Amino acid sequence: MERHHHHDECCEQGAKTGSGMKPLKALISLEEGFKILMESVRPIERREVIGLLQARGRVLAQDVKAGMDVPPFPRAAMDGYAVLAQDTFPAGTFHPVTLDRVETIHAGEIAKARVDNGMCIQVATGCPMPEGADAVVMVEDTEAEGKTIRVYKPVYPRQNVSPQGEDIESGTIILREGMLLTPGRIGVLAALGIQEVEAYAKPRVAVIPSGNEIVPLGEPLALGRIYDVNSYTLSALIEENGGVPMIFPTVADELEAVKSTIQEALAYDLIVLSGGSSVGERDMMVAAVESLGEVKFHGIAVKPGKPTLCGLVKGRLIIGMPGYPTSCLTNGYGFLVPVLRKLARLPERGSSSVKVPLSRRVVSTIGRHQYLPVRVEDGAAVPAFKESGAITSMALADGWVEIPANVDLVEKGELVDVYLF
Amino acid sequence: MERHHHHDECCEQGAKTGSGMKPLKALISLEEGFKILMESVRPIERREVIGLLQARGRVLAQDVKAGMDVPPFPRAAMDGYAVLAQDTFPAGTFHPVTLDRVETIHAGEIAKARVDNGMCIQVATGCPMPEGADAVVMVEDTEAEGKTIRVYKPVYPRQNVSPQGEDIESGTIILREGMLLTPGRIGVLAALGIQEVEAYAKPRVAVIPSGNEIVPLGEPLALGRIYDVNSYTLSALIEENGGVPMIFPTVADELEAVKSTIQEALAYDLIVLSGGSSVGERDMMVAAVESLGEVKFHGIAVKPGKPTLCGLVKGRLIIGMPGYPTSCLTNGYGFLVPVLRKLARLPERGSSSVKVPLSRRVVSTIGRHQYLPVRVEDGAAVPAFKESGAITSMALADGWVEIPANVDLVEKGELVDVYLF
Repeated sequence: MERHHHHDECCEQGAKTGSGMKPLKALISLEEGFKILMESVRPIERREVIGLLQARGRVLAQDVKAGMDVPPFPRAAMDGYAVLAQDTFPAGTFHPVTLDRVETIHAGEIAKARVDNGMCIQVATGCPMPEGADAVVMVEDTEAEGKTIRVYKPVYPRQNVSPQGEDIESGTIILREGMLLTPGRIGVLAALGIQEVEAYAKPRVAVIPSGNEIVPLGEPLALGRIYDVNSYTLSALIEENGGVPMIFPTVADELEAVKSTIQEALAYDLIVLSGGSSVGERDMMVAAVESLGEVKFHGIAVKPGKPTLCGLVKGRLIIGMPGYPTSCLTNGYGFLVPVLRKLARLPERGSSSVKVPLSRRVVSTIGRHQYLPVRVEDGAAVPAFKESGAITSMALADGWVEIPANVDLVEKGELVDVYLF
Repeated sequence: MERHHHHDECCEQGAKTGSGMKPLKALISLEEGFKILMESVRPIERREVIGLLQARGRVLAQDVKAGMDVPPFPRAAMDGYAVLAQDTFPAGTFHPVTLDRVETIHAGEIAKARVDNGMCIQVATGCPMPEGADAVVMVEDTEAEGKTIRVYKPVYPRQNVSPQGEDIESGTIILREGMLLTPGRIGVLAALGIQEVEAYAKPRVAVIPSGNEIVPLGEPLALGRIYDVNSYTLSALIEENGGVPMIFPTVADELEAVKSTIQEALAYDLIVLSGGSSVGERDMMVAAVESLGEVKFHGIAVKPGKPTLCGLVKGRLIIGMPGYPTSCLTNGYGFLVPVLRKLARLPERGSSSVKVPLSRRVVSTIGRHQYLPVRVEDGAAVPAFKESGAITSMALADGWVEIPANVDLVEKGELVDVYLF
């Protein structure tokens, strides 16, 4: 007697197999699977030169050394009068010091005159400090009568002056390799007049749909066929997390076809196979990866998304995603995003989360870490999971709740963290 | 006697003015300013047709009605045998029911035979249900001997079958106008074979640098000049929040030049002026906006970033940002981002935040809401603010802490929320 062994929901470690339908390999825990995946990917080394207007969200591949001081000259930090501080020491509300205004400069202008004792030059914020002057008296602490300026308050040397190089000193390494280029850091590059920097390349990700039932968008849908969903959800997720997706033509369920497609995809930084839903389709993927390289694991104790494959071919990580759209996309958030961000050298995805009560009791499978898509409605988390094959489970959810493997029940009203998409 | 009135740090309501240096208008509170800004911008109405691969992060401008059922046919949800459920009712572990396998189909194939009493067809997950069959027996509950299949467990009608339209029913409005296109929702479009949708256009934002001291990147830096920082920080921020920035040539501090540039910029959805740092430059902006339309406010009780201008010209919102890079960028996060996201119809920026103790005492100005850039180091928030003119204040920070207007001191060790960039 043969007992077939098979699909997603029934696979146990060590179960007997037969008749060409192979089981998933022994299931490994979420933690172990995650660790293997993360260890199997190395941050990208490829670099490219990018312009400042393309720099947002990119990762610096070089240290940036300041080639100039910022500000490039000592400048007035206030509108007022550039003076010699010592001239103002005797000043007070009832006994102003009187100075001669010898010049007035506006933003972008340079003083021609020099400030000597008894003199001042009217300056605007940002003007280079005139020669001789060592402080700026704020305009509100003065009174003007033609060229005669009365100063009512003393200033100390360097008061209201931004020294040259105060913000950035020439020669300093001001940004470091590996830094994410935020708007503020792009500002540093601009301040230094730097128009191009070396950044790490964005990882190119091969997205390979498989399954004889999968039809690419734009083609007519014959009976028994369905449109390719996973290539589009995964591409969006890849783009959102710093990768450049490339959707391959759908691969037929034939060993040689899958193998030659994987070989072609080795030119990419990461390979993501999606599908199929049946055991036969999954076996094909496993066999293809095994014949070209190494299968690190196949089957992970997570729900949905158990039939996840991790392989290495010539140093390239291959992730085989489940064919069912919800399984595929929850695994995308759970595994592909962290792997891709490590590859792209991006910090962990900063997911906003909210803590809200669960709207109804949820039963989970002991031994399986569960990703539960939920909507947030009236301050509660409402389970939105339909079934693994339903894309609407994810589309109409706001985020997901994680139920650890050792929990089999979450009661109505219990507070849960919802990780928002 | 004239008392000049002037810069950022000294402006009070009702202060006297003189000699062509105008004060900021009466300062308004952060809350009031924010409210006026948000009320002055209307969500964009322009639409465009976009392809599915460009849809990520876009906002639907149409309801999406399903033109087909998903799945498009009733399908097997398990690998196994399509049967008539009633045939299996007598089955049990010790008295299997015997059926004739009349056909075997794989993914993407359609059964030619029909399942009548006593028959079964072997199916893979995802296969269309063969005619006549109303349930699927999982392969593990069976035993095969050639074409004779022994069934050890009964199934009820529709067990392990996904009905046609279970995920999406034809005719349903499955996605609604105004929805953000997440990976999951893009998956819904793919499942329906939809390759193009109508989305709201991304707002085009005119970024207008001003100030005679500002030099565009790529030009030599004469004495007294500095490179344009704000156009680059703002552009990155605009891109990050769903806008399309267009950097204008730097405008000279001349009323007619500023006016004609604003008029040109009315072709954009939002106008952002940056600079200048001096009172004269700011006055020019105010005068230009006043002569073309209406100044809603000029001066807001926030630190840094007080000299912020809000104007309306022919229904177009104009935001005048302070010239100092840190003031400009903190205001970018504080005001420009919420305004732009409302314009773009995007949900509020989901900023991750962490709650950590402050590393040292921070003094704030009573009556001014303070944005304090901080680094997160060893689990504490370390103030990173240098001065409003220093771009490194923002570049080397991880996020910011907000200190409300009615707080003048935050003690070392107090828990604060750090909003991460």
